[in-house]
Amino acid sequence: MCDSCGCHIPEHATPQTVDVHESLLAANTKQAKENRRHLDEMGAIAINLISSPGSGKTTLLEHTIQHLRDEITIGVIEGDIETERDADRIKKQGAPAIQITTGGACHLDARLVHKGLHQLQHEASTSKFDIIFIENVGNLVCPATFDLGEHERIVLISVPEGSDKPAKYPKAFTSSQIFLITKTDLLQYFDFSTEEAKTEAMKLNPALRILELSSTTEKGFEEWLSYLRQLVKR
Amino acid sequence: MCDSCGCHIPEHATPQTVDVHESLLAANTKQAKENRRHLDEMGAIAINLISSPGSGKTTLLEHTIQHLRDEITIGVIEGDIETERDADRIKKQGAPAIQITTGGACHLDARLVHKGLHQLQHEASTSKFDIIFIENVGNLVCPATFDLGEHERIVLISVPEGSDKPAKYPKAFTSSQIFLITKTDLLQYFDFSTEEAKTEAMKLNPALRILELSSTTEKGFEEWLSYLRQLVKR
Repeated sequence: MCDSCGCHIPEHATPQTVDVHESLLAANTKQAKENRRHLDEMGAIAINLISSPGSGKTTLLEHTIQHLRDEITIGVIEGDIETERDADRIKKQGAPAIQITTGGACHLDARLVHKGLHQLQHEASTSKFDIIFIENVGNLVCPATFDLGEHERIVLISVPEGSDKPAKYPKAFTSSQIFLITKTDLLQYFDFSTEEAKTEAMKLNPALRILELSSTTEKGFEEWLSYLRQLVKR
Repeated sequence: MCDSCGCHIPEHATPQTVDVHESLLAANTKQAKENRRHLDEMGAIAINLISSPGSGKTTLLEHTIQHLRDEITIGVIEGDIETERDADRIKKQGAPAIQITTGGACHLDARLVHKGLHQLQHEASTSKFDIIFIENVGNLVCPATFDLGEHERIVLISVPEGSDKPAKYPKAFTSSQIFLITKTDLLQYFDFSTEEAKTEAMKLNPALRILELSSTTEKGFEEWLSYLRQLVKR
């Protein structure tokens, strides 16, 4: 396995192959640093959301925008392999959003986000954002390796996915600041142990902050919204 | 994007970078062909299961083994980034299983499966299998690019993930023979349109066979088991 980008490299790989992977990741890290500088100049906090497909990232953003649109200026960069649907859903909530379609690639990278930031400023006709959410491609593996220049990284696991997932997909947890357990309104229908999910996640990353919430019932939303308000103030 | 392996390659990539990706995929394809020859010699049908984390692959295999263990010889190769849990679950059902942990890599490749086949024969002390299931790493993106030497590829989407997923993750659908809609006992709790999922999948791949099932209630299991019995007979 390539230590740099997480790609699998055969045992017989030449040093040249390893060099190419390392240089790809080094270029990404350089661009990510540039993105962070750009975001700092704009005064915006960027949040990178990482999860499997269907864990409820877009629905969470829809509800979050409904609550905060009158007090916090939010922009959204949506990453998907295909389709513009998620950006359309966000725009309906009144927040500017742009869609990056990767055309097959399994994660966003810093270069795509750099372009996305410029598109978002153009779309909104402003550079003034308090928070820019970056919804990564639905994939719990590859996005964890790529710094996009974000200030906060959030990993989401929904109740239907199972409480064994932190132990199975560790990198998303070791590299995040926040772990959101979503779709908690479904706990009664699934064999999901909140205790197991939390314990395994904390073993991987003792500094992780864990929030439990449901976008359907909005249980846990007060803590989530408080966390976002604190981010903007700090 | 690299046409060969689906990795994202920056616009400024050198021809050397593209060559490395192409040679990685060519090596995989060669090994996959070798695996298929090996499986044919063994008289085994290999089935590659591709889905997001938590779509119910392991649970489906547990129930399938319970039904078929007296008539069909089943072996399982489990792929995960970390942990041996899934192989342990399968062994409890009385089928030989081995675990491949990729140590970070986001998909199985043909070389790992080649090793896995030998380990499985060693574990079972036999080369006689009717069906070998290969449960890929939970990831709806990257595994779709890598031929493992399987005879059948199955893509799974569970009801909680949402019916928009075929359109968003097309390659898993264009490269599969079967599409399983799983956890159908949960349809009443989710805004999942079976019609949308089927229509979008058929647009991508009109030859796709679609089965709907629930491992909890075993609704749809008769058709699933018939399909497996037919595979073994043909």
